[in-house]
Parts: sequence; structure tokens; C-alpha cells
Amino acid sequence: MSTSAGWEHPRASFYTDHYELTMLQASLHSGAAHRRSVFEAFARRLPDGRRYGIVAGTGRLLEGIADFRFGEAELDFLGRTGVVNQDTLDYLAGYRFSGDIWGYPEGEAYFPNSPILIVESTFAEACMLETYLLSVLNHDSAIASAASRMITAAGNRPCIEMGSRRTHEEAAPAAARAAVIAGFDSTSNLEAGIRYGIKTVGTAAHSFTLLHDTEQDAFEAQLASLGKGTSLLVDTYDVEAAVRSAVGLAGPKLGAVRLDSGDLVAQAQWVRQLLDQLGNENTKIVVTSDLDEFAIAALQAAPVDSYGVGTSLVTGSGAPTASMVYKLVSRTDDAGNFVSVAKTAKNKASMGGRKYALRRLNEHGIATQEIVGIGRPPEDDGNDRPLLQQFIKNGELLPGWTGHEGVVRARQRHADTMAELPSVVNRLQRGDAAIPTIYEEN
Amino acid sequence: MSTSAGWEHPRASFYTDHYELTMLQASLHSGAAHRRSVFEAFARRLPDGRRYGIVAGTGRLLEGIADFRFGEAELDFLGRTGVVNQDTLDYLAGYRFSGDIWGYPEGEAYFPNSPILIVESTFAEACMLETYLLSVLNHDSAIASAASRMITAAGNRPCIEMGSRRTHEEAAPAAARAAVIAGFDSTSNLEAGIRYGIKTVGTAAHSFTLLHDTEQDAFEAQLASLGKGTSLLVDTYDVEAAVRSAVGLAGPKLGAVRLDSGDLVAQAQWVRQLLDQLGNENTKIVVTSDLDEFAIAALQAAPVDSYGVGTSLVTGSGAPTASMVYKLVSRTDDAGNFVSVAKTAKNKASMGGRKYALRRLNEHGIATQEIVGIGRPPEDDGNDRPLLQQFIKNGELLPGWTGHEGVVRARQRHADTMAELPSVVNRLQRGDAAIPTIYEEN
Repeated sequence: MSTSAGWEHPRASFYTDHYELTMLQASLHSGAAHRRSVFEAFARRLPDGRRYGIVAGTGRLLEGIADFRFGEAELDFLGRTGVVNQDTLDYLAGYRFSGDIWGYPEGEAYFPNSPILIVESTFAEACMLETYLLSVLNHDSAIASAASRMITAAGNRPCIEMGSRRTHEEAAPAAARAAVIAGFDSTSNLEAGIRYGIKTVGTAAHSFTLLHDTEQDAFEAQLASLGKGTSLLVDTYDVEAAVRSAVGLAGPKLGAVRLDSGDLVAQAQWVRQLLDQLGNENTKIVVTSDLDEFAIAALQAAPVDSYGVGTSLVTGSGAPTASMVYKLVSRTDDAGNFVSVAKTAKNKASMGGRKYALRRLNEHGIATQEIVGIGRPPEDDGNDRPLLQQFIKNGELLPGWTGHEGVVRARQRHADTMAELPSVVNRLQRGDAAIPTIYEEN
Repeated sequence: MSTSAGWEHPRASFYTDHYELTMLQASLHSGAAHRRSVFEAFARRLPDGRRYGIVAGTGRLLEGIADFRFGEAELDFLGRTGVVNQDTLDYLAGYRFSGDIWGYPEGEAYFPNSPILIVESTFAEACMLETYLLSVLNHDSAIASAASRMITAAGNRPCIEMGSRRTHEEAAPAAARAAVIAGFDSTSNLEAGIRYGIKTVGTAAHSFTLLHDTEQDAFEAQLASLGKGTSLLVDTYDVEAAVRSAVGLAGPKLGAVRLDSGDLVAQAQWVRQLLDQLGNENTKIVVTSDLDEFAIAALQAAPVDSYGVGTSLVTGSGAPTASMVYKLVSRTDDAGNFVSVAKTAKNKASMGGRKYALRRLNEHGIATQEIVGIGRPPEDDGNDRPLLQQFIKNGELLPGWTGHEGVVRARQRHADTMAELPSVVNRLQRGDAAIPTIYEEN
């Protein structure tokens, strides 16, 4: 296929580190490539002071895994540049993931060492997915985790995602998708609209005002073309004059005014008063100036109707990646029996073995512990909510996790899981994880 | 086209904010859409305490602009969802950028208010490029700016880009490309290899060791398959035992050992001594544990041969976006004369008008000032290096800026510009821009 940038790619398979393929080659050589293996994606810690994280990207990831193949162009490149030998090329030509994948559903909260994704297949099949899988989960979860805090800070005021220009162009629709999963109302990004069915919004920038001879000309043009329900940007020259001009031209049906600079708290106060004086009680105030969850919280006392969030959202508000890792936790031996494995060198101890995961709830239905264990889960006494769902079975994608449906479902999961977490998740201050992760072994 | 994730996109045109299109509609309505306009991309400030930034992304951007069209799927979406009216759809169906673009060549250093990219065309044509243009420049320049500091810290020791798993999967090859422009030697990312001809490298992860019954089995398999020149990862269990085992199996021709955890400075010291004692003076030491420019600087006194850098690189080492903006600085009036324009509301003053830009050098050829002016540049006295180059003329891409050639050229530009900057750019501590930006008006 050819794309906008003139390259013939990508296939998901090439979003991959070189060493996944050299490991494949060496393990095909030793024969260990065919050992049944369990890999786990998890985060050893939450970003600095965060109380929880939100899983996102799963739907995108599953779509990519379904199409994870090595085509002629990829095989030619790998052969020509000597990345791998002919035996490995032959294996890759037939590559198709045929194993099982479970994980936390998209939108679910996670904590340190939550087993967010579990992949069981041959080593060769699972190893190939590592880089791609982590790229998607690390990026999207970082955005959803930041977005979730902004949504909490915003209360019932809608948030609009508008950060496309401050992140990689292809990361932008993924960021919009993650933001909507965490409760954002809409996005400025058209690609997110066409690809995921997310609502897109937008009206005009300062350049539109500057293009016209006067601000009044610009407002007239916008109102004539987009209707009185549009949002007029009032801070190109003098805010008060612009608000009066806007109301003068549009009358009481003016949809909104947008403030994009200055002391937003004070400005929102007097702009609200001015609008009310002028008879525009129904004209809303949108604010959009480099907001993050803290600025949103500070604006909650101001008469603001909605928040447009850009840079801070798409860069994860200080935590641009979720730092998830993907580790081999169990694999078969020559007799076909599973053996738990883990790195033991200092500083990076991992827990071997295939996990189960439960969210333990108290009598009020509030989460108290993240239970992660190896072996058989404890019998259900009604207070443990199982967290792992199956996404792929024998290589077949199970329905409901991808596309627009996946986004809708993940958004609901996020809302449900937030309602279940202790109220400490509403605090923006730094602190420990909202609930502890407890290891069990049965 | 269909891609890995099952969507029929993207065309560069949809990496775009909704409001670019509503502005287009309203300006088509007022007629101002056809006014000749000059837009400028610049950063008001460098990230917190940085001395300079590095422009990157230009080559990718120019490839995208050459293919910036609205196809059937895009037009159908825009019509169906009511983003714009029929007149606007008709305009978009024939959209093709036919103007001029100048800018700082890729790899060049920039400072606050450097006019990094200048677009001259009708308002309609230039406005459409805003979101995409900023996405590419903001992402790639953030990575290149961080990478450049790492390269300075690393001195003549090669750096390997290996951050794919910690950023969006499609941002990863762009990050690899930006890192190589700023002096990185190679990347782990296969897509960067196939797309841009960048050298890819990699050997094995901990999972490969854990897959085998013993570390020795794993080392044997890797050496047999990849040769003695490979790099063995020695910190899965006990580092000393692993180094002894590696040397025992591979002999003096072992290529390298890799350290990925622990106190790397101390560890590198004694591992080097041990390798030398065992007769492996030529076996190199690669370190790869969450490095950034500060960790690299701290490791310069240790006997390390190369650095693998991941998370910190692809997240811009604390500055994941370059915060560039794209502003209308000049446009024609009804008589066809250019008028300088700028937003005047508080906090965000911009300088209107079409700029020139020069780097002023002292008698030793060292940069002393960034000169940005409006009107005619001063006469060349041999001490001013003009910074703006033309990339697109009447809609036609000029040769040499894109593809593999563009990367090679940008890498050279980065090396040349760094040699010209004052030595303060070698300091990692926070401080002011290395040279001041001076406005001139003639």
C-alpha cells in the first residue's frame, strides 16, 4: 500500500525492535522458539505520585495483532540487510499469532504490577509482539491516565481534546481516542472522527480574526457562515470590546465565547457578568489556554462552561509514557511442563508465573485491594471482581473489543471503575497508589 | 488504502483540526480565504532551561504536504457529519498546496522566536496545513533537541536509539529518524530501517535467557546463531558469573556484554577489569538502563563503549513537545498590498510581518546572535549566515530535503551548526538560550 508520506508501509509487524528478530533466529536455532510461553505486560510503578492508571490502547492493539504479518517488502528488507537468516525468514513468512491473549479491559484502572495483558503462545509468536504491544499500551495508557484526572477535576463540565498539534500526527488520533475513553466529550482531530466515530468540534483561531480587516468583519463572516450558535474567539485584541461586538452582532443566541490567554479565572468572572448584563445568559464560556488538571481544578470556581485541553493531555501531563514492560513469566521445559521464570539480578525483581487478578471490594462496593496471584484464584465470595478478560482465543479476535464499539465499551468501563475506587483517586496531590497490590500464591 | 489497523487512511490532510475547516468555510464565505497570507512557525521559548533547540521533521513534513489532498473518504465524512458546507467541499476536492515554503533546514539549531518555517500562499491553502505541520515539527524537534544533548554528553561514544516501546508505534520511527539527525548512530526500530535507510541493531532481551533452561544454554544458542561478535546480556542472574560464562563460551572474540540494571558506573568498572583479566580487551561494554543525558554524562568516566537510550529520548527528556506555534504574520488587503498582523491581547504578543533570519558570527566563526528582521536583510559582511532555505516553490518540492538524502543532509547540518555554537551549548545545566534573538526592522 502507499500512504501519505510515500512509504509502502506500515504493517504492524515492523513497529518492532531488531532484537525481537535476532532472538527469534537464535531460539529457532536452539529449538526453544517453540516452547509454550506466557508473557505479561505490567507497570512496576505508577508515574510519580499518581494514585492510579487507566488502561488504554487495547482495541487498537488487537486490530494490529489481527493484521500482524510479514509481507514481501519486510522479508526482502530483513534478508537484504542481514537482520536474520533464511530459516528465520521462512518462519516469518508464515507468521500469524495463533495463541491466547487476556487482559484488563480497556478503560479499567490499574496499579503497580497489575497484569495488564497476558499473552500465551509459543515463545516465537509472543516475542514478536513485544515492541508493538508496548508502544500502543504505553502511549495510550499514559494519555488516558492523564485524561482521567482532568475529567475528575472538571466535574460535570465537558472537556474537549485539542492537542493534535503538540504530538506526533499519528499519535494524535490515538490520544483523542484515549481521552474519550477517559471521559472527554469530543476532539478537534478529524482523523479520530473518521476512524473511531468520535465527535469532532472546532470553530476558529486568531489567524481568522487577523485575516480580516477588522475583528467585526471576522465575527460577521463566522456568524454568517457557521451560524449564531458558533463560538467566537474574543482575545485577539481587546476582550471587552470583542465580547460587546460579538453580542452586538449575534444577539442572545450567540453560542459561546472562547478565552485563550490571560488570567482565566478573573477573566471568566467579568466576561460572565458582562454577557449576563448584555442579556446573553445562555452564551457559554469556553477556556483553552494551556490547561492541565491543576488549572482545571483552579477554574472550577469560575463561571466556565467547558475546557479545551491540548499540550498537557497529549503529553500525559508530565508522564508521557506509562512505563509498562513485557516480561516472560512462564514457559515450558523439554517435558512440556510450565516453569515460572523471572530475572533475579538486583533492582528489577519480577514475579514469575501466570497470574490471575481480582479487585477486592468492601461491603460498600469500594475497591480496597488489587489481588494478583499465581495458581487457582480464591473462591468467589462476591467481593472479588475478576479483572482479566479474554481478547484473543487460538489466534481469533473475540468480538466487542475493537472499533467504535470498543471505544464506547471502554468509556463505560472507565466510568464504572472510577465509581468503584476509593475517593482518594479524586485528589490531584502526589501520593501512593489508591489501593495496594497484594500478591497471593495458592 | 487499507493499513495494519484496518482503517482506510490516513492522508496527511486528516491529521487536521476541525477548526481549520470551519475557518476555511467562513473565509470562503467572506472572500478573505483568497487573500495572500504569510504564516510562520516558531517557538516563543525553549523548554525549561534548555540552551538551544534542533529543528527536525522538515523532510517528513514536506513529503506529507506533497500528498496533502482530500479524497473521497474524507469529503464524504466532512459532508456526512456536517463539518463544512458544499462550497467548502468543492474547494477541498481541488485542494493542492500551490504556494511557497521556506524554513530553517532540518538539523539546524533554533532559539526563541526563530522563524523556523514560513508558508506563503492563499489563507485557505496555508491554514489547512497548520495542524499537520505543527504535529510533525513539534514532535520531531522535541526528540532531536533531546538527542542532541545526549550526543554532546556522550562525546565520541556511539548512542543507539531504542525507545520504540515507550512511544506511539508510529512516533517511534520518526523519533529514530530525529535521533539520527542529531547524531545517534543507529536504532532498534525496523520501520526506521526500511523507511529511512537507518542502520538497525539489536541482539537479545532477558526473556531469551529465561526461555532457556540455563543462561549457558541461552548464550550458546545466541553465539551459535548470531556469531561471536554478538552482544550478550549479562544481568539476568549474576553478572560476574554471566561474564565468565560468556567469555568461556565465546573466547576473546566476544563482541560485547550489555548491562541493563544496577549501579552502572561501578559495574562497568569491574566488568571491564574482569573482561581484561580474562583476555577480552576487545570485548565492548554497552549500557542501556533508563539513560538520559545526565546519566550519560555521569557514565563518561566509566569504561563504557556505547549507550542505548530509550524512554528519555522518545519523550524528549522532560520536554515531549517543542511548543511551536503557527501564526498569521502578514496578509494582503483588498488592494493586494501586504499588511503585517499580530495578536495584541496580553501575554502572547507576536511580531507581525514576513521575516528574514541570520546567524551572526564573530571573527572566530562562533555564533553570537540570532538576527530576525522584517524587510530587507542587512548587506552581507561575511559574518551573517542566512538561515532560511526554500523547500517548496509554487507548490513544487525542491530536491534534496526528503527521504534518506534529507536525513543524511540534516545530520551534517546538525554537526555543522553545533560546531558553530558557543560552548555553553555543551552544558547540561539549566540556563538561558545560548545566543539571544535580536529583532531588526529595516
